[in-house]
Amino acid sequence: MNLSQIGELSLLEQIRKKFEKKSRNILVGIGDDSAVLKPINNNLLVTTDMMVEGIHFNLGFTTTYQLGFKLVSINVSDIYGMGGTPLYILLNIAVNKNTDVKFINNFFDGVKDALDLYKTILIGGDFSSTDRGMALSATVIGYVKKHIPRSGANVGDRIYVTGNLGDSACGLELLKKVNNSIPLLQTSRKKQRASRLRYLRLKSSKDGLSRNTVDPLLRRHLMPKARDPKKFSLYATSMIDISDGLLIDLSRICNESKVGARIYTEKIPISPELIKAACCLAISPMDLALSGGEDYELLFTAPARKNIKAIHIGEITKSERVIVDASGREKPFTAEGYQHFRNHK
Amino acid sequence: MNLSQIGELSLLEQIRKKFEKKSRNILVGIGDDSAVLKPINNNLLVTTDMMVEGIHFNLGFTTTYQLGFKLVSINVSDIYGMGGTPLYILLNIAVNKNTDVKFINNFFDGVKDALDLYKTILIGGDFSSTDRGMALSATVIGYVKKHIPRSGANVGDRIYVTGNLGDSACGLELLKKVNNSIPLLQTSRKKQRASRLRYLRLKSSKDGLSRNTVDPLLRRHLMPKARDPKKFSLYATSMIDISDGLLIDLSRICNESKVGARIYTEKIPISPELIKAACCLAISPMDLALSGGEDYELLFTAPARKNIKAIHIGEITKSERVIVDASGREKPFTAEGYQHFRNHK
Repeated sequence: MNLSQIGELSLLEQIRKKFEKKSRNILVGIGDDSAVLKPINNNLLVTTDMMVEGIHFNLGFTTTYQLGFKLVSINVSDIYGMGGTPLYILLNIAVNKNTDVKFINNFFDGVKDALDLYKTILIGGDFSSTDRGMALSATVIGYVKKHIPRSGANVGDRIYVTGNLGDSACGLELLKKVNNSIPLLQTSRKKQRASRLRYLRLKSSKDGLSRNTVDPLLRRHLMPKARDPKKFSLYATSMIDISDGLLIDLSRICNESKVGARIYTEKIPISPELIKAACCLAISPMDLALSGGEDYELLFTAPARKNIKAIHIGEITKSERVIVDASGREKPFTAEGYQHFRNHK
Repeated sequence: MNLSQIGELSLLEQIRKKFEKKSRNILVGIGDDSAVLKPINNNLLVTTDMMVEGIHFNLGFTTTYQLGFKLVSINVSDIYGMGGTPLYILLNIAVNKNTDVKFINNFFDGVKDALDLYKTILIGGDFSSTDRGMALSATVIGYVKKHIPRSGANVGDRIYVTGNLGDSACGLELLKKVNNSIPLLQTSRKKQRASRLRYLRLKSSKDGLSRNTVDPLLRRHLMPKARDPKKFSLYATSMIDISDGLLIDLSRICNESKVGARIYTEKIPISPELIKAACCLAISPMDLALSGGEDYELLFTAPARKNIKAIHIGEITKSERVIVDASGREKPFTAEGYQHFRNHK
């Protein structure tokens, strides 16, 4: 059955039932002109982001389940990037009216699993049709006692990241190479069989990567998980989530804090899977780690003496912005990463 | 100059400067992972809406200035529809990278004029590129002491609307007929000359409508103004903004309140311009008033004895839903109006 057969109103009704959650802080959830929430006593965080077919995602590469999960994750990541806690989410979805209802239900299954993971509640949004590609947007409301801005880095602070970089960009390169959506493991048996077939197809190209190598990379791209900063947010002086690539996001911290940065390639965390796959793809894993986007790890700064549970990759300097390689050579860096509208090579 | 020449970062910088507003309640505005707001002591309202090229707007019909204005208005209207006051707005914009920067600047001029009109502040959002049509979304945050839900209508309440219905739908029909964007009066002299030329083109078709007739109808469609419910919100028992058409939105109030409604065609406010233009277009003005969308007037119910400054169009009944015509004939009504995904005639 497609959307033109069930119509917007009945679809909204189904979603309302699926996501209706009682909370004494939600006076009105889905289904009125706007959501009504009890006052939030802490400072309020609000962020919004859009995903457009053909730019942010390719329905040839991703299932709608993965897409729903990712849409929530990338918005929650912006709340975490301020040191906050996400609470509520609103979604806008524009799809072609000939879309199969199953496709939409899978999307909302992905949304629901992400909502559960981050303990957030869907409180509103809107459906509309499009005669072209799919467009999505989400808004997340959260709170924070004391936010961590991009502008708080001090000279001498250490620079940290929360996990491996470059995996997501490598996952995207693999998808482009396979040119098909790859169901991740952990799915039903039937789907796993399909994924084995696709694996063979991948192997029949000359790269010969195993599912154990490929899967974590694809997962980082298709279903990224936002990093909760709770463990270190008390110490962080500045923070940002890495959505556009380490160098561009570090440059943002430098610009806002009016400081420089020195990072060491040897300290940048790179997964063994990335090394294997990048080698097969003939791409430099370090290039992906420095400039590949969508890892959704957190990048933050904190005073040197604190015992921080994250990966130390460098220091904040007065003004110089350099990368130091394994042999001690310094190279200046500029903001490199994904920038919308620019013509990319 | 087009967007691929100036790039996302410099565009964001321009917008940040244009909209930067100091307020002691905004701890972080545009330019970080999320906005940070001081706690809002009243109940919080949040609403979001999306506009997609080819569905919600046609760039052959509307200028981007008008589009920016409308995007803000329709979202503010949802806050007003709850009896609230809008405070902050976040925008997402996806456009083709070959778009002229002027086109985007005009869009933001329209956004700015609407923000000033509703006394709201832009606090965040995102830019991205698309290889197809333009997609927009907005999120508005507001507050309310006591919200007015759709579900509060009581048997015996009167039904009110705040202004003329059907104008917007008629404006859209006129635009389809002219098949060109029509700058509204009040613009620069140069643009007025252009609009006179286009008026002639309109006149050369057999309808012969004057700009005085056409202009208010187009304006209602291209640059709708949201209605502030302050004057009567103390008395209203239920409320909704009319975005999808009177009958569909009244049906929503009936469904949520578990009541019926009786409305009188003679009481439904129709502008003289709508009567003239609908006649030329050979459409029934009453059909447009009952089922045309996007008027953004408020529809609300209130107890009968109050002295309400709005137009009384009928009464809430126990369960029957009828329209009474000038000669007293009753006709049941169902939800009719714009519904996404349905195949429209």
